[in-house]
Amino acid sequence: MARYDFASDNTAPATPEAMAAVVAANSGYTSGYGTDTISARAGDLVRALLDADAEVRFVSSGTAANAISLAALCRPFESVLAHHHAHVCTDETGAPGFFGQGIGLVHLAGASGKIDPASLAGPLAAPDVSYRQPIAALSVTNATEYGTVYSTADLQALIQPVKAKGYGVHLDGARLANAVAAGFDLKTIKGLGVDILVIGGTKAGMPPAEAVVIFDRALARRFDARLKQAGQLPSKGRFFAAPFIGMLEDGALFRHAAHANAMARRLADQMPFPVLHPVEANGVFVEMDEARLAALQAAGWFVYRFLDGSVRFMCSWASTAAAVDEIAESLRRLA
Amino acid sequence: MARYDFASDNTAPATPEAMAAVVAANSGYTSGYGTDTISARAGDLVRALLDADAEVRFVSSGTAANAISLAALCRPFESVLAHHHAHVCTDETGAPGFFGQGIGLVHLAGASGKIDPASLAGPLAAPDVSYRQPIAALSVTNATEYGTVYSTADLQALIQPVKAKGYGVHLDGARLANAVAAGFDLKTIKGLGVDILVIGGTKAGMPPAEAVVIFDRALARRFDARLKQAGQLPSKGRFFAAPFIGMLEDGALFRHAAHANAMARRLADQMPFPVLHPVEANGVFVEMDEARLAALQAAGWFVYRFLDGSVRFMCSWASTAAAVDEIAESLRRLA
Amino acid sequence: MARYDFASDNTAPATPEAMAAVVAANSGYTSGYGTDTISARAGDLVRALLDADAEVRFVSSGTAANAISLAALCRPFESVLAHHHAHVCTDETGAPGFFGQGIGLVHLAGASGKIDPASLAGPLAAPDVSYRQPIAALSVTNATEYGTVYSTADLQALIQPVKAKGYGVHLDGARLANAVAAGFDLKTIKGLGVDILVIGGTKAGMPPAEAVVIFDRALARRFDARLKQAGQLPSKGRFFAAPFIGMLEDGALFRHAAHANAMARRLADQMPFPVLHPVEANGVFVEMDEARLAALQAAGWFVYRFLDGSVRFMCSWASTAAAVDEIAESLRRLA
Amino acid sequence: MARYDFASDNTAPATPEAMAAVVAANSGYTSGYGTDTISARAGDLVRALLDADAEVRFVSSGTAANAISLAALCRPFESVLAHHHAHVCTDETGAPGFFGQGIGLVHLAGASGKIDPASLAGPLAAPDVSYRQPIAALSVTNATEYGTVYSTADLQALIQPVKAKGYGVHLDGARLANAVAAGFDLKTIKGLGVDILVIGGTKAGMPPAEAVVIFDRALARRFDARLKQAGQLPSKGRFFAAPFIGMLEDGALFRHAAHANAMARRLADQMPFPVLHPVEANGVFVEMDEARLAALQAAGWFVYRFLDGSVRFMCSWASTAAAVDEIAESLRRLA
Repeated sequence: MARYDFASDNTAPATPEAMAAVVAANSGYTSGYGTDTISARAGDLVRALLDADAEVRFVSSGTAANAISLAALCRPFESVLAHHHAHVCTDETGAPGFFGQGIGLVHLAGASGKIDPASLAGPLAAPDVSYRQPIAALSVTNATEYGTVYSTADLQALIQPVKAKGYGVHLDGARLANAVAAGFDLKTIKGLGVDILVIGGTKAGMPPAEAVVIFDRALARRFDARLKQAGQLPSKGRFFAAPFIGMLEDGALFRHAAHANAMARRLADQMPFPVLHPVEANGVFVEMDEARLAALQAAGWFVYRFLDGSVRFMCSWASTAAAVDEIAESLRRLA
Repeated sequence: MARYDFASDNTAPATPEAMAAVVAANSGYTSGYGTDTISARAGDLVRALLDADAEVRFVSSGTAANAISLAALCRPFESVLAHHHAHVCTDETGAPGFFGQGIGLVHLAGASGKIDPASLAGPLAAPDVSYRQPIAALSVTNATEYGTVYSTADLQALIQPVKAKGYGVHLDGARLANAVAAGFDLKTIKGLGVDILVIGGTKAGMPPAEAVVIFDRALARRFDARLKQAGQLPSKGRFFAAPFIGMLEDGALFRHAAHANAMARRLADQMPFPVLHPVEANGVFVEMDEARLAALQAAGWFVYRFLDGSVRFMCSWASTAAAVDEIAESLRRLA
Repeated sequence: MARYDFASDNTAPATPEAMAAVVAANSGYTSGYGTDTISARAGDLVRALLDADAEVRFVSSGTAANAISLAALCRPFESVLAHHHAHVCTDETGAPGFFGQGIGLVHLAGASGKIDPASLAGPLAAPDVSYRQPIAALSVTNATEYGTVYSTADLQALIQPVKAKGYGVHLDGARLANAVAAGFDLKTIKGLGVDILVIGGTKAGMPPAEAVVIFDRALARRFDARLKQAGQLPSKGRFFAAPFIGMLEDGALFRHAAHANAMARRLADQMPFPVLHPVEANGVFVEMDEARLAALQAAGWFVYRFLDGSVRFMCSWASTAAAVDEIAESLRRLA
Repeated sequence: MARYDFASDNTAPATPEAMAAVVAANSGYTSGYGTDTISARAGDLVRALLDADAEVRFVSSGTAANAISLAALCRPFESVLAHHHAHVCTDETGAPGFFGQGIGLVHLAGASGKIDPASLAGPLAAPDVSYRQPIAALSVTNATEYGTVYSTADLQALIQPVKAKGYGVHLDGARLANAVAAGFDLKTIKGLGVDILVIGGTKAGMPPAEAVVIFDRALARRFDARLKQAGQLPSKGRFFAAPFIGMLEDGALFRHAAHANAMARRLADQMPFPVLHPVEANGVFVEMDEARLAALQAAGWFVYRFLDGSVRFMCSWASTAAAVDEIAESLRRLA
C-alpha cells in the first residue's frame, strides 16, 4: 500500500491537541450557528494571536473560505490579482468564480510562488475598460505553494499599492502556521491592510477547520447570512472552533509547524536531487525525471509532480525523522 | 443560563459512537478528497443500509448538501417543487438559488409539513411558458419539519407523477433516522425514483456530517469536481465519513433516533398545551400564547415560535427522561 | 388570425417618432459601447426629464434592466421587497435570482398591484437571522401591473421606511409614461430616495429599449463593466438610445401614453363585465368566466387571464378608438 | 473629431437592407417573445442558409449569445477550450463565468488567432481530477479575431477530437459572414458537430442583432426560458429578427462582407508597415511603434493596439475605397 507521508500536509491525521479539544468541546447543549461559547473562546484566541479586534468565523473548507472571502471583496464583473500558481487559481476547481458568479483571476508571475512586486504595476495602472474585469482585490498566500515565506516587508510591498487604489486584500493562510514558524510575525498582519485572512487549520494538523478573520468590520455585516447561504455556517459550530482552541491555547499550532518545517529542512539536507525552491516552510521541491519519479512511486512513496514540473515533498506535524530518513534513503538509491 | 435541550436537535453534542469512530479514524496517513478507506467503508455501510448500488459522498453541511443536490437536478431557469415550510424554502438563506444561480422554488401546501398530493397537479400540468421557471424537480423531506413521517406509499403518491414528467427527485433526510425509527423502511427508497438523497448526520447526533447518496449514476459524473468547487470535498474526508461508521455499524443511528422519538412522545403525553401536529418523530408543536412562551423562556428554556405559529420542542438522542419531565413540569406550571 | 391589439402593450409596433429617430441615428461612424453622441444626447434628455444629475444607460431588455438593478442593490444572501404580483416576481423567469445569484424576493400584499404600506412593517422590523435572507431593497412599480398609479405621496410612504433602514430602492418604470400621463410628476422621483430607476421604452412604443437611471453615483461605479458582463452594453449603443430621443424631444412619449390611457378609459366605459381595478393607466381588468373568455378568443381577440384571475385588456399608443369600440361590441355580445 | 472608420466593424451604421427590413417589420400587432411571423421567417432563412433543421433565436448581444451558449454546454465546475485571444476570453468582461456561474476557460495557443490543433491534445487527455475544472466544450471563432479564416477541414481537425470525448462545440460567428466571403462554406457546419452557432449581425452591418442556432435539439429544450431569464428574449422579437431578413433575403450579408474583406485587402496592399497576420477577412494587423500610432491618432484616425501588440485596422460594409486610400496616405506619411 502506498505511503502518503509526503504526498501533502493534509494526508496526516489530526494532532492530539486538536482532537482532545474536539472531544472536550463535545459536552452539553449549546446554541447553534456559531453563537456557542466554544466558538466565542476560539474567536478570542484568534484575536489575541493577531492582537486585533476582528470578526472571526470557523468554517469547514479552505476552498470555501477563500472563495467566500473573494466574493466579499469583489463583484462578479471585477477580478482578483493572484500568483498564477496560487491555490485559488489552480486547485480549487474555479471556486472563486462559482461563489463570486464569474469573478476573474488575473495571474501574476513571481519566482518560487511569491508574487513579483513589479508584476503588480501593469494591472494596477490599467484603465478601467468595460470589456475587461477591472481589479478589485489582491489575494496573497503565506507560506506560498512552493514553501517560501513572505516577510512583513514583502507583503507590505505588495499590499501598499493595492490599498492605494482602494482595493481589497485577502491573505490565504492555509499554511500560515508554517510561515510563523519560519519567522513571520502574525501581529504585523493587522497593520498591513489585509481585509480578510483565512487561517488554515486542516494543513496545520486539525480536522477540517479554517478560521476566517474579517479585519474590515464593514465587510462583516451580515456575514453569517453569507456563510449560511454558502453552506459554511454549521449548526454545530463548536466542532470547527474547538480544534483552534486545542492548537492555540498552549502554542501547539506553531510547535507542530516548526516541526514540519524542520522535517522539510532535514529532507532537503539529505536530498540527492536538485532542490528548486528555497526551503523556508514545510515543502521540498526537486528536479526529478519521469523514470525516477515512477521508481519512487513503485517503491511505495506517493508523491507527485507539481505545477512547475518539480516533484513535491510535503512535511507535516506527523512527519517523523525516521520517515524522512527512510524516504531520503529511497531517494539516494534512485539518484 | 438558557437551556437548549429542546431548542433543536442540533444543540446536542455528538453521540459517543460517532465520536469514538472519529477518534478511531484519526490514525495514520491517508489519501485525500474522499479517496481514503474510511470514506470507502462508510460508503459501503450506506449502500448496505439502502440495499442500493449508489454513489455516496460525505459533506459537512446539510444546507450545502441540499442546495448542491437541487443544482444537480435543475438549471437556473427551472424550479423545484417543495412544501412551503420545507427547510430548503425557509431556513437555508436562499442556498438553492445561490448554488443553483437562481433556481426557483415553487411552494406547495399540505398539513403538518407533508405535501398534499393534490397540490402537485396544478404545477405539473402547467404548460411551459418562457416567463416562468418550469418545474424540473421535487424536493421532499422525511421526517418533515413538523415531526410527521411519510410512509413509502405517501412518497410514492408524490414521486410517481413527478417522475412521469421526467423530472428529478431530491429527498431531504435531515431527520431520516427519525423517520426510520417511526417505521419508514429505508430499503424502499431505491424503488421510489429518488435521484439524490441526503442523509442527515448532524441532527441525528453526529458532529457536522451529511451523506449525499446519488442513485442516478449519470448525475454522479464529475460530482467530485462539483463538490470541490462548492467547498464540500474536504481533503480530510475521513472526518465526515467516520461518524457514519460509528453510527451505522451497530445500528446506533436508529437506536438513538428511536430514543429521540420516544422522548417527544413522552413530552407530548404530558403536554398541557394543545399539540398541533401528529407526534410521529422527534418534535412536538404546541399552541401557546406570547405571554406563556415568554414565561417559559424566562424559566430558562430556550424554545421558539416556528413557521406556523406553534411553539416547537425538539428532542434528540441526548434528551433525558428527566429533562423531559422537568420541562413538562415547567409547562404545567404555566398552563 | 388572432388580433393582438389588446393582448399586451408590447404587441404594438414602434411609434413613428421612435422609428424616425432610429433611422436618423443610423448615420456615420461612432465610437462604441454607449460612448457615442446619440447616447449622450439621449442621456441629457432623460436627465432633463427628471431634473436630476444621474447616470443614464440604455439597454435592450426590461427584464435585464430590472435584474441588474436589483443585483446592484443586493448581495446574493439578501432579499428584495416587492408586490407579490410585481413583474420581477412573476414574469421574469427568476431573472433577479439569476443575475443576483440567488437574491431573494419577499412578497408583499396590496390591492390592485399597489403595495400596502402596512405590509412593509413586518419585514422591515424582522431581526437579521442567519438562516433567512435579510432585506436590502424595495422594488416598486409605477404604473403597476394592474393599471393603477402611485402618487408621489404613495411612493414616499413606501420608500421612507425603507431608506430609514439604509436599504436601496428600485423603481420599475416599465409603464412610467402611463403613470405620468395619469398625473404622476417625474421630477419628484429625485427627491424620493430612488437609487435606480428603469424607464420603459418597449411598452411605451419604442423598439426594444430601456433606460437605466442611476441616481446614486456610488452605485454607478464600473456600471459599464457590469452591463457588458451581463450582455447589456451594446457596441452599437445608439440603437437603444435613439428611440428615447425621438420620444422625448417633443413629448411624444407622454402624448402616446395619454392616448393609451384614454383608450383604456374608453374601453372601461363601454365594458359590460365588472371592472376589478381602478382604470388609471392603460389596462382594464375584468371578471369574466371561462366560457366567455373562450368565446372572445374564438371571436379572434387574443387576451388572457391574468395573475389575479381577471381578464386583462391592455391599450397602447397604437390602439384606435375604432378597435376599442369593436372589441367592446364583441364583449357586449358575450355579456 | 476622431474618425472611427477603421476602429472596429461595429462603429459603422447599419446597412440600408437591414434598416429597410426593420422599418418594414414595424407594422401591425404581433404576438411576443419570438413567436411572431417575422421571427419565424428569419429563422427559416437561417435554416435555409445552413441547410439544417436547427432551432434559431434572435438576441441583442453577441456577448450574451456566446455566454448563454457556453452555459448551455457546460456546468459551473467544467471548462471551455478556447484560443487565448478569443473574444470570450478577452473582451466579454468574464461573461461566460457570469452566465455560467464560474465556468472556466482553458486558453489554447495558435498563430494568428487560429487554435493550433496540437494544443488540444494535452487538455483533452488530462484525467479528470476533482480540483480542476474538466473540459466540457470547445469554443472556436470564424473568422478569427485576427482576420484569419478556418477552412472546413481546419474546423474538423479541431472539432473531431472534442466530439470524440463527448464534449460540446460552440462556434462564435461574430464575423461568420466575412469567413463566408473568404470561401468558408456555411452548409458544412451542420456536418461538423457544432452544437450551438452564433451568427453575428452587429459586426456584419445590422443594428444590434445576433442569431443563436441550436443544432442539437436536446439543448434547445426550454431555451426560451433560458433566454428570458438571461434578458435575451425580447417581447418585441421582430426587431432582432428583421435585420436578418433584410440581410439574408437577397444575399446582402455576404455581398457586404465581401466588400469589407476587399477593403481590408486594399488597405493591406497599400500598407507601409509590416502586416503581421494573413489578411483573409476584414482586418489588417500591423507592426507600428508607439510614436507612429500616436501620430496616426493625432491625425484623427481612431485605431488601437490589439492583444498581440499589433495595431488593428478593421473594415466594414461601410468602408469606402476613398477612406481606405485616405488612411493609407496618412500611414505612408508616418512610415
